[in-house]
Amino acid sequence: MRHWSFTKGHGTENDFVLLLDRESMLHVGPAEVRYLCDRRAGVGGDGLLRAVAARHIAEWDGDGSLWFMDYRNADGSVAEMCGNGLRVFARFLLDSNLASGPTLDIATRTGLQQATALRDGRIRVSMGPVTVGADAAGVPVTTADGQRFAARPADVGNPHAVSFVDELDTLDLHLSPSFPADAFPDGVNLEFVRRLGPEHLAMRVHERGVGETRSCGTGTVAAAAAARAQSAEADPLPVTYRVDVPGGSVEVELTDDQAYLTGPAVLVATGQVTVPEEG
Amino acid sequence: MRHWSFTKGHGTENDFVLLLDRESMLHVGPAEVRYLCDRRAGVGGDGLLRAVAARHIAEWDGDGSLWFMDYRNADGSVAEMCGNGLRVFARFLLDSNLASGPTLDIATRTGLQQATALRDGRIRVSMGPVTVGADAAGVPVTTADGQRFAARPADVGNPHAVSFVDELDTLDLHLSPSFPADAFPDGVNLEFVRRLGPEHLAMRVHERGVGETRSCGTGTVAAAAAARAQSAEADPLPVTYRVDVPGGSVEVELTDDQAYLTGPAVLVATGQVTVPEEG
Repeated sequence: MRHWSFTKGHGTENDFVLLLDRESMLHVGPAEVRYLCDRRAGVGGDGLLRAVAARHIAEWDGDGSLWFMDYRNADGSVAEMCGNGLRVFARFLLDSNLASGPTLDIATRTGLQQATALRDGRIRVSMGPVTVGADAAGVPVTTADGQRFAARPADVGNPHAVSFVDELDTLDLHLSPSFPADAFPDGVNLEFVRRLGPEHLAMRVHERGVGETRSCGTGTVAAAAAARAQSAEADPLPVTYRVDVPGGSVEVELTDDQAYLTGPAVLVATGQVTVPEEG
Repeated sequence: MRHWSFTKGHGTENDFVLLLDRESMLHVGPAEVRYLCDRRAGVGGDGLLRAVAARHIAEWDGDGSLWFMDYRNADGSVAEMCGNGLRVFARFLLDSNLASGPTLDIATRTGLQQATALRDGRIRVSMGPVTVGADAAGVPVTTADGQRFAARPADVGNPHAVSFVDELDTLDLHLSPSFPADAFPDGVNLEFVRRLGPEHLAMRVHERGVGETRSCGTGTVAAAAAARAQSAEADPLPVTYRVDVPGGSVEVELTDDQAYLTGPAVLVATGQVTVPEEG
């Protein structure tokens, strides 16, 4: 048995197990990730965030003294980016005095990102560029209750498809909505968005390989970009959308070159977890 | 903000947040329980187990020097008994050197119970008496996929209804099965049981107010008692059933006067959790 220090935190109820592993001494393989993220047999989280000095990451060719956010999905797979995770990661570095703020650079698999701790307690992070499919007709998506939507593809480093709906609460997302397999051969995150105002959206999301979640950071960016694209007359840039998700509320700024996500980041608990030698 | 020490543990993946509060100094109201059991915004658990000296519990009129298991459901309500929780509670007392074993008495809302740490690492707990409804015709229960069963009522301090099924894996329990409201005015825990052998059962369970869970200790006792009652020629007492649940496997002994439950009890993590002043 190993005993590892951990922190648990969340952003709009998208939650993470954080490990501090500066010199990359811990063996954190898929089995360890699955165990730590198991909500009943482990600590529990949508994913794991390992804080490691970037010089230990072979694929990173930037400043090796930065902190690298090694993000893994709860199923043990490696993931590119997570907007809610990036805010929680920044909060962890700042509150643990591992970095000084209010603005810090963080190395990620999508390159260098920036996080800023705001005076109101929220954290604003850069999310890189977002592109929306040109074809407004979109891709046909059918929910478990038989409703059909024309979903607009969007790319935020990972694939999304955004459907605009009149009614959000009654939507049946307990099973994955279906879509033409050839439209998204690697799967897709499906956002269902209701307009509450010109720059105010409500959203539910079905994440690929996970199911419906309380929040998805890249999904809120996709939703904002699709909402802007959908408007008869596109909002001039920069523009800020408020996006309400089941787990809370975030703001998405769209600028000429990339998107920014602002929202809460909360550390809940710290402790020691027992990790079996065999995952 | 308050900072409380906690432990997290589980028995067959029925998981709990444990608080040590010997002199009953912590204010653990429904809001605190809901927060601590919240899987994304808190620590996460099916319930909370507070270890408090029995002399502080007004309703307890026995030995005040015993440990009292103050069990709460994740929704903040007070609960009578939890077989998986009782094992985890005993493991916590023993591993924290708060009690000496291998056998210890524990005060609970269903009276004095006994726990024994076995050499194989499992814990055996007394569960009190179990009674099975005399009418084998049972109560009609319909699952979300339209299958109908005749469920046999059983009482393990809390109400159960046990249906025997030919196929367990395909059963749709994502919504509560329906039953005549007048049969169980306070709701009921619904067990679906498949016989794997003369004294070997597999079970899935839909817990009232919760949904499908990975395990339910009183439910496994109800299942064993109903299986014995269902047999053309009842097994002589004492008899031991193995009951496989999605979260693991337990043994239920039925004796003349009460039931005993034997299974794993694992402590996963210890730490400090931040508790907001306003739940």
